[in-house]
Amino acid sequence: MSFRIEKDTMGEVKVPSDKYWGAQTERSRNNFKIGPAGSMPLDIVYGFAYLKKAAAYTNCELGVLSEEKRDLIAKVCDEILNGKHDDQFPLVIWQTGSGTQSNMNVNEVIANRAQELAGGKIGEGEKAIQPNDDVNKSQSSNDTFPTGMHIAAYKKIMEVTLPGLIKLRNTLNAKSEEFADCVKIGRTHLMDATPLTLGQEFSGYVSQMDHGIKALKNTLDHLSELALGGTAVGTGLNTPKGYDVLVAKYIAEFTGLPFRTAENKFEALAAHDAFVETHGALKQLAVSLNKIANDIRMMASGPRSGIGEITIPANEPGSSIMPGKVNPTQCEALTMVCAQVMGNDVAITIGGTQGHYELNVFKPMMAANLLQSAQLLGDACISFDTHCASGIKPNEKVIKQLLNNSLMLVTALNTKIGYYKAAEIANTAHENGTTLREEAVRLGYVTEEEYDAWVRPEDMVGSMPAEKSSK
Amino acid sequence: MSFRIEKDTMGEVKVPSDKYWGAQTERSRNNFKIGPAGSMPLDIVYGFAYLKKAAAYTNCELGVLSEEKRDLIAKVCDEILNGKHDDQFPLVIWQTGSGTQSNMNVNEVIANRAQELAGGKIGEGEKAIQPNDDVNKSQSSNDTFPTGMHIAAYKKIMEVTLPGLIKLRNTLNAKSEEFADCVKIGRTHLMDATPLTLGQEFSGYVSQMDHGIKALKNTLDHLSELALGGTAVGTGLNTPKGYDVLVAKYIAEFTGLPFRTAENKFEALAAHDAFVETHGALKQLAVSLNKIANDIRMMASGPRSGIGEITIPANEPGSSIMPGKVNPTQCEALTMVCAQVMGNDVAITIGGTQGHYELNVFKPMMAANLLQSAQLLGDACISFDTHCASGIKPNEKVIKQLLNNSLMLVTALNTKIGYYKAAEIANTAHENGTTLREEAVRLGYVTEEEYDAWVRPEDMVGSMPAEKSSK
Amino acid sequence: MSFRIEKDTMGEVKVPSDKYWGAQTERSRNNFKIGPAGSMPLDIVYGFAYLKKAAAYTNCELGVLSEEKRDLIAKVCDEILNGKHDDQFPLVIWQTGSGTQSNMNVNEVIANRAQELAGGKIGEGEKAIQPNDDVNKSQSSNDTFPTGMHIAAYKKIMEVTLPGLIKLRNTLNAKSEEFADCVKIGRTHLMDATPLTLGQEFSGYVSQMDHGIKALKNTLDHLSELALGGTAVGTGLNTPKGYDVLVAKYIAEFTGLPFRTAENKFEALAAHDAFVETHGALKQLAVSLNKIANDIRMMASGPRSGIGEITIPANEPGSSIMPGKVNPTQCEALTMVCAQVMGNDVAITIGGTQGHYELNVFKPMMAANLLQSAQLLGDACISFDTHCASGIKPNEKVIKQLLNNSLMLVTALNTKIGYYKAAEIANTAHENGTTLREEAVRLGYVTEEEYDAWVRPEDMVGSMPAEKSSK
Amino acid sequence: MSFRIEKDTMGEVKVPSDKYWGAQTERSRNNFKIGPAGSMPLDIVYGFAYLKKAAAYTNCELGVLSEEKRDLIAKVCDEILNGKHDDQFPLVIWQTGSGTQSNMNVNEVIANRAQELAGGKIGEGEKAIQPNDDVNKSQSSNDTFPTGMHIAAYKKIMEVTLPGLIKLRNTLNAKSEEFADCVKIGRTHLMDATPLTLGQEFSGYVSQMDHGIKALKNTLDHLSELALGGTAVGTGLNTPKGYDVLVAKYIAEFTGLPFRTAENKFEALAAHDAFVETHGALKQLAVSLNKIANDIRMMASGPRSGIGEITIPANEPGSSIMPGKVNPTQCEALTMVCAQVMGNDVAITIGGTQGHYELNVFKPMMAANLLQSAQLLGDACISFDTHCASGIKPNEKVIKQLLNNSLMLVTALNTKIGYYKAAEIANTAHENGTTLREEAVRLGYVTEEEYDAWVRPEDMVGSMPAEKSSK
Repeated sequence: MSFRIEKDTMGEVKVPSDKYWGAQTERSRNNFKIGPAGSMPLDIVYGFAYLKKAAAYTNCELGVLSEEKRDLIAKVCDEILNGKHDDQFPLVIWQTGSGTQSNMNVNEVIANRAQELAGGKIGEGEKAIQPNDDVNKSQSSNDTFPTGMHIAAYKKIMEVTLPGLIKLRNTLNAKSEEFADCVKIGRTHLMDATPLTLGQEFSGYVSQMDHGIKALKNTLDHLSELALGGTAVGTGLNTPKGYDVLVAKYIAEFTGLPFRTAENKFEALAAHDAFVETHGALKQLAVSLNKIANDIRMMASGPRSGIGEITIPANEPGSSIMPGKVNPTQCEALTMVCAQVMGNDVAITIGGTQGHYELNVFKPMMAANLLQSAQLLGDACISFDTHCASGIKPNEKVIKQLLNNSLMLVTALNTKIGYYKAAEIANTAHENGTTLREEAVRLGYVTEEEYDAWVRPEDMVGSMPAEKSSK
Repeated sequence: MSFRIEKDTMGEVKVPSDKYWGAQTERSRNNFKIGPAGSMPLDIVYGFAYLKKAAAYTNCELGVLSEEKRDLIAKVCDEILNGKHDDQFPLVIWQTGSGTQSNMNVNEVIANRAQELAGGKIGEGEKAIQPNDDVNKSQSSNDTFPTGMHIAAYKKIMEVTLPGLIKLRNTLNAKSEEFADCVKIGRTHLMDATPLTLGQEFSGYVSQMDHGIKALKNTLDHLSELALGGTAVGTGLNTPKGYDVLVAKYIAEFTGLPFRTAENKFEALAAHDAFVETHGALKQLAVSLNKIANDIRMMASGPRSGIGEITIPANEPGSSIMPGKVNPTQCEALTMVCAQVMGNDVAITIGGTQGHYELNVFKPMMAANLLQSAQLLGDACISFDTHCASGIKPNEKVIKQLLNNSLMLVTALNTKIGYYKAAEIANTAHENGTTLREEAVRLGYVTEEEYDAWVRPEDMVGSMPAEKSSK
Repeated sequence: MSFRIEKDTMGEVKVPSDKYWGAQTERSRNNFKIGPAGSMPLDIVYGFAYLKKAAAYTNCELGVLSEEKRDLIAKVCDEILNGKHDDQFPLVIWQTGSGTQSNMNVNEVIANRAQELAGGKIGEGEKAIQPNDDVNKSQSSNDTFPTGMHIAAYKKIMEVTLPGLIKLRNTLNAKSEEFADCVKIGRTHLMDATPLTLGQEFSGYVSQMDHGIKALKNTLDHLSELALGGTAVGTGLNTPKGYDVLVAKYIAEFTGLPFRTAENKFEALAAHDAFVETHGALKQLAVSLNKIANDIRMMASGPRSGIGEITIPANEPGSSIMPGKVNPTQCEALTMVCAQVMGNDVAITIGGTQGHYELNVFKPMMAANLLQSAQLLGDACISFDTHCASGIKPNEKVIKQLLNNSLMLVTALNTKIGYYKAAEIANTAHENGTTLREEAVRLGYVTEEEYDAWVRPEDMVGSMPAEKSSK
Repeated sequence: MSFRIEKDTMGEVKVPSDKYWGAQTERSRNNFKIGPAGSMPLDIVYGFAYLKKAAAYTNCELGVLSEEKRDLIAKVCDEILNGKHDDQFPLVIWQTGSGTQSNMNVNEVIANRAQELAGGKIGEGEKAIQPNDDVNKSQSSNDTFPTGMHIAAYKKIMEVTLPGLIKLRNTLNAKSEEFADCVKIGRTHLMDATPLTLGQEFSGYVSQMDHGIKALKNTLDHLSELALGGTAVGTGLNTPKGYDVLVAKYIAEFTGLPFRTAENKFEALAAHDAFVETHGALKQLAVSLNKIANDIRMMASGPRSGIGEITIPANEPGSSIMPGKVNPTQCEALTMVCAQVMGNDVAITIGGTQGHYELNVFKPMMAANLLQSAQLLGDACISFDTHCASGIKPNEKVIKQLLNNSLMLVTALNTKIGYYKAAEIANTAHENGTTLREEAVRLGYVTEEEYDAWVRPEDMVGSMPAEKSSK
């Protein structure tokens, strides 16, 4: 392996000659061997590429950077965004809590790659672009890293999380409409209860997701605030006038997302409540999805000794020892994701509490956890939708049998003969293993005709919630 | 102790004769001896009183309850809301997960007290009011308990949490304005950084609270949805037409809060995502307050061997062994509350995941945790505001001394002489224990006049965020 | 209400004349109106009573306190332990994080009550006992509060938690033996699997509890370490030689528990890892109990549309609207407790991380959470045991029917005809709604005789784990 | 890309021809596109390799597998353990919750690679080794995956976590001895308190780690229990007699670790309390390390406006904008790891609660979280030790200055002149900005000679805890 010498304020460092990164990246590689290499999410690197390009444009427009330098920087940023330099970012999450070295990693790669683009050779001659003085101009790690975090998170939610959630929501909604007339036994406390339709049951899932999606969208406004322009402590030291607003405008333009400069830069550096807020909504969705997946696997349980009211697609052989077994594997994957998101929420919460004075130094950890949650939830929704939800079918025979066998239909008699007599009928049928109808008549509380007129499951399910247009 | 005999569908039970409750309450008292008696929050009981009264009015208006019964029920509800029967609710949180027995506790107390109000004697003669057939008419535990939860939570947030948060926010905002010209050293990574004003530092706290308050308010819409009218499984079985909308209107009228019937009753019974959502916002505020309280106690640390930039009020002798010591006790109380809220969030999250089919049976636990968090946060903000925040004073002498002694002012030279030379000046002063000015001049990078003109802390703090009108 | 004047180093305070507490308690009452009054657990107060008595004995034995004073102090401590002064401790959890004021509360109550016992009148004449100089002699809040915490926690675990756990464990073990021959269908992924006995299923619960109880006991050694003797920062300043070892000996003697002086007093004040450790074990038990309670309510679900393999006792009417319904209410109470314990674990974890320098100031919050968890788990186990576990009965008819109907018995053929052919049999029976036996023979893979000889559920359950003697 | 056709019970699947995996792996790859590919930890794969080899040896010894097959299987397992097939395991964590498909992935790779080793060609001719009938013989996913989890976790803790913890513990212990005579101001509530030595402060850290390491070791016994031999539901169906004990013996032999067969296989499949237990100890260590890292960064804060009592190594330029700044980056990396571990604990806790009947289906998630925590803690300790702890130096000048300036030395006078007079001296000096000595004499409470004799910081620090031998 061959090396070249790079320098920073602390002196010389040997760097692999085929890499664009420089001294500070290399120091970090050596100083933080914690977990697998390169764990810093590439999404963050791409967030940096957007902001470095936007900063170059802003600096140029405000007269502190030449057009040549702007274009060189922008060109490398575009290369990064095209995935051409993914192997140039070897650092880990578990580094400086401000992400300083990932900022420098980007600065160094841009400067060295620009040297090439400008026709030079890395480490030789004068630098076309200085990593600190040019690429990092009007910036600090302290405002770039949170800006990169917000860009990455917002994009992930728009591109992965919400599409996944909405796709699943729409499938559940279609199922709710499809199952609108399928009357089945309800269950409360896991015990038989009064009937409802399978469509109504699914409408509850849709409502959960609608509320969760709304809650997630509610958090995006906070997430759209960018720290950039605050520099080291939030005061905007060493930035040209108008820089913060303009750089946010460029980022909004380059990403196509409604970013704006943060109302208060001191908050934007010292706290990451926006991440706490957004992840709180992701956690809420995990709670909802956990309920939905649990219900579905319980309803699909069997094939013969479970509930068996629905069937779900068989995607793989279920057991390496039990032939013929089909398991609710998508429910399992989804609920594991939900548990992970709930754990990540605590990590983010703890990180969020620990800002000190002008800086929160749990940035990379918070970013990595939110990005993981957002990715996993989106992916898991798609997977669950494709391989499970869209294939759910009611098992009409079982549903009908369980419904008609139920003792809870007696509730229909409450308003006719009073709670106590109705209870007596149910209890007697339960003890004797008989049907409600038999006992109701035998006890003399109703006639056969009355029973048949009054106890009609299809009359006990009320009306469906208004149909929603799909989203 | 004397007893009377009460009955339910399971048979007879001995109940203390001086109590209004009946058979089902007494069974629950005996069956659930878990933790201290009476732990079910009274706020829930009051929530029930509102809804029982509203149900009576609605049932009457829809023609299924007489005016006499309505008025008797309403009268007892008013007595409960006036705190006259607080000792009649002995049940614990750790009971049926649907809160059935707390619903019955309310039903029984209303019925028996109504018997008295109607001139009767408890347990004698015909019941003026039946607990199930009258008080609980058109209701189920499954829709009443979540309704009571929502009423209690919404009221608590409006009456305790938000007032506390806003009071503290306004004090911090006033302090931010008061300290607008107090230039001090910034700190990032707990290390000296470039200057800012103490007012800017506090403006970050205000911004955190503003975002948190907004996030909390965002959740209230979900919380305003009431399950009542769903009855046992969400279908509204045994309710008269129009009941759900009307009963929510009455509850809104009686409480003065914008309650409405839930969009989807199946969700409202089977999931408590509204609680997960609202508590998520409370947790976010706990994260913010933790940061604020931490900063304040660090800045107030000393008196001689800490940071000492601010002083906080001395409210009590600080130590039983070290005389003269004054501690940041309000910060400690507040951060303990924050930790509790973060713990409660996990309890609520877990409870939220575990709804099964048509019912979530972690209701009392979720309710108790949210009410505790909402109460503690509100109270702790008032306490912190009154006994700490409002008395914060800058220690101007220390602030000035730390500022002028700092090496980080060198950052002002970055744009004048470049990052590397500026770093050299700072490093040299650090090694020699000298001042920046001395070394800057000695190294020949600037003249004395240039230094004085360029390194001006008051020029390094940018402009304050726009003042906000108080809320 | 009448008042008397009490004094501390900050001046005069008005205190209700019928109370023993003094100036510092009263200040704390007024300064910390957070949540309900008196929330500081009485268990902590009792822990203090033990240690104050032990300190008096130790101080006397080491020659720094007179026998008269020792006896006066000890007498009041005994009164406190007998519950005679429960109304004298009005402070809240959410106070100074060192619990200083609860220490002073105890000091003041002892001193003023001692004044009475010595024949004096509170607030008049010379004090027989000084709260600081006598009751608090050789102590600091910083070492007394953690000592009180450890005493309270250890006692609670020995007197409430472990007895509850062991009682339930023994019932489950008895059930495991009782159900040793009850062959039933197994379920994995909630889907039908190969058979086992109900006794084997219960033996898994017993094993979980055995491991959990062992884990809890493993933590007691750390919990037995007492901070007392460390005074303000852990150095033992102002304590007589030999004090720490001796005072721990007295506490061990008075409580009958194996307390000893902490190996390292600096840890004992600045960190509460012992609480983190012990609560970690409580959380593990909550995890185990959650699984057990969940299984039981699923197995008891029905009565007609669920699993229905076991019946659990009917303790109360299950529904205010659905007559005849019986719910797994003890399972619900227990799992709510489990969720609370898991939430408390996070609160304790966060509190545990935040010690600074020589002191952790999340003591009261950590103590209150651990004591709540320990109490609730113990109580809930007793309740669950008494009202649910001990009454569990297999529903033999259902168990047999589900077993014989199952397709998973085909696994018995794996070793005879290979996995693929066995799978084909199961799949065919599944598709045709037929029995395994029919299809196995029809497909020509086995004869009827072979089938009957090979597919015997009772041969598929292996042997029970060795019976354990009850604990 | 070229493909070959593989088959399972569900039919044909196209598999990349250069891969050893088969139909079920390929199905899982396509059905679970959740998060990055290949996220299932290789440690789990290696755990499987140990157990597959052990199973082959056991099956052979018990007469159900030929020596040829045993040797072929073992040879591939050794290749896997040598890292030769790392690219053959493309599955993700978020799959079947039993890890069935990762079990099949291993089975398929072994069978196909064995085909090559036996001189055959994959997919052609008769299989030398069948993935189900040979590699998986006497096994089920349900007992192999938890076995693989336990092997991976135990190894990780022995090879990474404990060595890291112990190395750091020993450095802190050496520092504690090195700093034994360095008297400094103590701090409680972040406020000045009575003195102690820096060595004593560090001894508290050592004690925390010692207790944490002991707690971790206490959990290993549970972790040493292996599920293997339980097969599908814990009964050991389809295993030869003596299999479970023997296979554990082989695993112990191959790994050099004290594994043994689980006491109760039903627990071992249906619950993962051993993981909850072990991770609980990791979380406790995270709590301890968080406290230690926090203290160190606060003590190292400055260089001029912080505490500055110690210096830590400067490993990298601290800021991209502020020259000369050196940050506590190792403290930041370590505390981020701690927050992650605390979050992971909640994910594992939630996963642990959700076993149903005979199987817990959160296995891969629980395994991945524990392995991450164990790896990160071990790595972070080494990093923190190497780049921070081992280079800590006291800043004697600052320490002395802060000590002598302190007001808390007045505590030394408590036992001489009483608490109230001592408090008066401290308060007066505080108000006047004078020294204790001046005011003590001026107030007439002590003579100069008495003051100098009584107030001696070096006499206030007690004696160091007994030195420990290094571990």
